[in-house]
Amino acid sequence: MSEPQRRIALRIQYDGATFAGSQWQPHSPTVQAALEHAIAHLTGETQRIDLAGRTDAGVHATGQVAALTTATDLPPPRWLHGLNHFLPDTVAVQAAQPVPPSFHPRHDARERTYHYHLQTAPHRQPLAQRYAWVVPGPLHLERIREALHKLIGEHDFASFAAPPEHPGTRRTLAEASLHSRGAQHCLRFRANAFLPHQVRRTVGLLERIGRGKETPDCIDRLLAEPQPGAVGPTAPPHGLVLAHVRYDIAALAEWSNDSEDLCRPQR
Amino acid sequence: MSEPQRRIALRIQYDGATFAGSQWQPHSPTVQAALEHAIAHLTGETQRIDLAGRTDAGVHATGQVAALTTATDLPPPRWLHGLNHFLPDTVAVQAAQPVPPSFHPRHDARERTYHYHLQTAPHRQPLAQRYAWVVPGPLHLERIREALHKLIGEHDFASFAAPPEHPGTRRTLAEASLHSRGAQHCLRFRANAFLPHQVRRTVGLLERIGRGKETPDCIDRLLAEPQPGAVGPTAPPHGLVLAHVRYDIAALAEWSNDSEDLCRPQR
Repeated sequence: MSEPQRRIALRIQYDGATFAGSQWQPHSPTVQAALEHAIAHLTGETQRIDLAGRTDAGVHATGQVAALTTATDLPPPRWLHGLNHFLPDTVAVQAAQPVPPSFHPRHDARERTYHYHLQTAPHRQPLAQRYAWVVPGPLHLERIREALHKLIGEHDFASFAAPPEHPGTRRTLAEASLHSRGAQHCLRFRANAFLPHQVRRTVGLLERIGRGKETPDCIDRLLAEPQPGAVGPTAPPHGLVLAHVRYDIAALAEWSNDSEDLCRPQR
Repeated sequence: MSEPQRRIALRIQYDGATFAGSQWQPHSPTVQAALEHAIAHLTGETQRIDLAGRTDAGVHATGQVAALTTATDLPPPRWLHGLNHFLPDTVAVQAAQPVPPSFHPRHDARERTYHYHLQTAPHRQPLAQRYAWVVPGPLHLERIREALHKLIGEHDFASFAAPPEHPGTRRTLAEASLHSRGAQHCLRFRANAFLPHQVRRTVGLLERIGRGKETPDCIDRLLAEPQPGAVGPTAPPHGLVLAHVRYDIAALAEWSNDSEDLCRPQR
């Protein structure tokens, strides 16, 4: 006789530097393995959890979403504190919420927001370089804004991704914006979904546009004549943060106004 | 026959997490040892360098100042790029400047500025906790401001320091201010000099005042009746940054308007 199963959604923050990405892999530390390990310690239940977004090795998150299925009746605060007790310093649950049994964090996601932190400096920046891509600069910010504007809307983004595993490469970019304070810049991208490496390849191109190595006009051509992998090089992973995933279900309504979703230039 | 000796000042940024402090120690990684090692690689010269401020294990710097004496005639850009080539990722020279032979970075310093980064959050913050002290909060910011105001001026700060090695414990605090953005806070302290642990003990008390465990009035008593070590506990080192050291010599005039001296709340 099976016990009643409950579905719990978790919002998770992690420092990607010490992980080989979010998804489970044999013999490598991953965010998924850390979470499954903590769940097993807390409940004795062994399971494969689902994650909203696949983040590459080195990529951070403030708003990754996971979902687990459990036979326990732990209340949400116990999930929060219990999992944080067993998780390593580099991962922490920020919220736990009961959701309908059918909830799937990837399939049900309506919108993802990524932030990319960029900093210009003439020399290495030991205090910035863990969470931002430090580039020599200066950057022509108006050209970057012009390029960002061209990216907004529904397009075939094949040029901006690794050659895809699946045929569909049309995505709708709802927002592509630049937030600057002095030498610190945060690029914000919000879309229904992203292709693999899309944000990092886009940022790699924007940095070249900012330095005058490419012009904003190249975006027109790349969108009009999609060519898988045309855009390179890829910006490094450590500047990227999965900031927010939006759902249209009532149980997660309060996660939609989260302050983590602000695009803040760093120190 | 001795060669002509030149004196070079260096402005240095470091991530203190991997160092046992700034000052040389046997068998421990220190910022001083890293610099002396890089100088020896670049020039073949073995020497003890001088540093403006002693930072404890875990404390960061954006504006630490070092001085070296050399028989080489390397121009400043060569010092900058050469040392950065040999330094570990966690330390980087930001500027190099020829100074008069008598220059001493500690004795000649007119003013030091420290920043302390504090963040309130109900749970662990993997992306913030490397460079900020994360406390549960909420903090009563007006009470912290009231306490900061009481600290400004010339006082005997013995209560705010470890029992001193030297008798003089009067210092002049020119600035003690709070800069907030949402849950991120930066405390800025500027003084002619600081006692050992003064900033961290002050922040430890301010955090207790912010949480209502102490009242701002306790500052009056601690300053009026100095008692070494009366203030505790000490705030952790990883929130602290030596941001700026000011000198009144012409050669270092341009370092005085450095943007690193801004007190910026972090992500």
